[in-house]
Amino acid sequence: MTNPVILTGDRATGPLHLGHFAGTLKNRVALQDTHEQYLLIADLQALTDHADRTGLVRGAVLEIALDYLAVGIDPDRTVICLQSGLPALAELALLYLNLVTVSRLERIPTIREEIASRGFGRAVPAGFLCYPAAQAADITGFRAGLVPVGADQAPLIELTNELVRRVNALAGAPILPETRALIPEAGRLPAPDGRGKMSKSAGTALPLSAAPDRISAFVRSMHTDPGHLRVSDPGRVEGNVVFAYLDAFDPDRAEVARLKDRYRAGGLGDGVIKRRLEELLQELIRPIRDRRATLAADPAQVLGLIRRGTELARERTRETRDLVYRSLRVGSG
Amino acid sequence: MTNPVILTGDRATGPLHLGHFAGTLKNRVALQDTHEQYLLIADLQALTDHADRTGLVRGAVLEIALDYLAVGIDPDRTVICLQSGLPALAELALLYLNLVTVSRLERIPTIREEIASRGFGRAVPAGFLCYPAAQAADITGFRAGLVPVGADQAPLIELTNELVRRVNALAGAPILPETRALIPEAGRLPAPDGRGKMSKSAGTALPLSAAPDRISAFVRSMHTDPGHLRVSDPGRVEGNVVFAYLDAFDPDRAEVARLKDRYRAGGLGDGVIKRRLEELLQELIRPIRDRRATLAADPAQVLGLIRRGTELARERTRETRDLVYRSLRVGSG
Repeated sequence: MTNPVILTGDRATGPLHLGHFAGTLKNRVALQDTHEQYLLIADLQALTDHADRTGLVRGAVLEIALDYLAVGIDPDRTVICLQSGLPALAELALLYLNLVTVSRLERIPTIREEIASRGFGRAVPAGFLCYPAAQAADITGFRAGLVPVGADQAPLIELTNELVRRVNALAGAPILPETRALIPEAGRLPAPDGRGKMSKSAGTALPLSAAPDRISAFVRSMHTDPGHLRVSDPGRVEGNVVFAYLDAFDPDRAEVARLKDRYRAGGLGDGVIKRRLEELLQELIRPIRDRRATLAADPAQVLGLIRRGTELARERTRETRDLVYRSLRVGSG
Repeated sequence: MTNPVILTGDRATGPLHLGHFAGTLKNRVALQDTHEQYLLIADLQALTDHADRTGLVRGAVLEIALDYLAVGIDPDRTVICLQSGLPALAELALLYLNLVTVSRLERIPTIREEIASRGFGRAVPAGFLCYPAAQAADITGFRAGLVPVGADQAPLIELTNELVRRVNALAGAPILPETRALIPEAGRLPAPDGRGKMSKSAGTALPLSAAPDRISAFVRSMHTDPGHLRVSDPGRVEGNVVFAYLDAFDPDRAEVARLKDRYRAGGLGDGVIKRRLEELLQELIRPIRDRRATLAADPAQVLGLIRRGTELARERTRETRDLVYRSLRVGSG
């Protein structure tokens, strides 16, 4: 049994942040030791709601690749590739649109919620409604068996597997593998004020290139327990942003457990836990920031890496397209 | 001023028929003398409502190419190509989906009517709702300035031009030409019983490979004027199927005008006009049927023609994709 192929990636809407690091980048670095892994920079998917901001999308491609390399993605073991350089994914997406109904797409919770929260109504761009089929094309185009995604993305994996089963039924053979969501145990990092999750669009994200001052300010701004007025007061650990971050980043689990006990009992000040967290984050981000700055000085080399990765990915996705077309008797080939 | 490039074509759902000949094939044969012309066999579009009948679609590709060649399309002057061999069209289609809203697609009369008449409701395949954007990709992918279509297709050309303007605005330059519908003067041929138009799905189509007996039976079955019981009775010309066909196919316009006068006045039997029409149709179809049979004996040669045409078309559509991507700053190129 070989390990399944992994596809993951990011929409090209801006640089990645600490939330991405905790949620997925750290895992990807570990997974490249054991799995064939493709990281897809989704510049076309970014256009589904940024059609008039192609400059931003284009700039984000380089930023994201810098983030990947800076956190330790090894381009010799992980293929970094660009969606717009992979025509076979568009071909599969267009094919899959015939195999899924409008109402099925509308029932996907993230689609329904995003349409509501952005106030699209019926004026939703067709590409936005259809992107789950395009995402299924991305996953199946790489014949990926494992897709690290957030819990909110599970329904998209479900749709992907429906399409896989439909294609396999039409082909009369299991030509595409079903895929499995790899959902991180830790939930998403909270925003410093504890309201919602860390998010670039909400302005609550700490970029992976953050300077020391910005990291300090970020930790200082974190909400703890509003009832914890004096050091001697008992404090709440649940909903306390600093402890959420210690849970995510502190390798010394036992010490975090002790700190929680002391905090609950009273007698542990916010300053102590914030200093501990800040030290951890400074340590974590410094080498990432340094590597990122070195790499950013030579963008041509990074773009060259993306280009080479995209060529490898083009090969693999074209094979899939050929397999699907041939099995479904599409085309004259 | 050079003439605009023409794109036209057919959904690969079955062989063409006499209605196609009168409505568009005849024009295409004439236009290849003066225009750069591409005929797209739309096998992917056929899948938008035939996803589970890919065998039928595949078979239709050859049938349609045979029809083209049999009526006089010259593969040295007209490029015959296959949609599924042109990835750039899928890439443009996916891009355009971001530039059009779901409600805009739903407002297109043919889409609205087809969704209603097929009883799709919300269970309409997403690919069916989206096909006008894919069709815009076909047209603009060839940078076509003229598109021979039926009158019912005019709203699709309107959508195409909206997308052209949107792309040009995003590009900051007129990189894509607007396109014009070339709508044939003659309306569509009626079915022999005068109810509706000639249609393959309604079983009222006369194929271009029809044998003499079938042509005879077809003409015999035509409704004339139900009030025209005796030869001496005055007859109606309007709504009379035989005269509709004489209008479409009889080159001797003056004689048709005289026949109409005599028919109206009374004294002209249905047999006379039917014999005249049958003779015309036998004359018209015989050489088409013969050429078609000869060509059908060597399908490999016809498939080779399609393959060569598709290569030329791949070149042209890829240029367009590159132009659009570069101008919109999509991709890393």
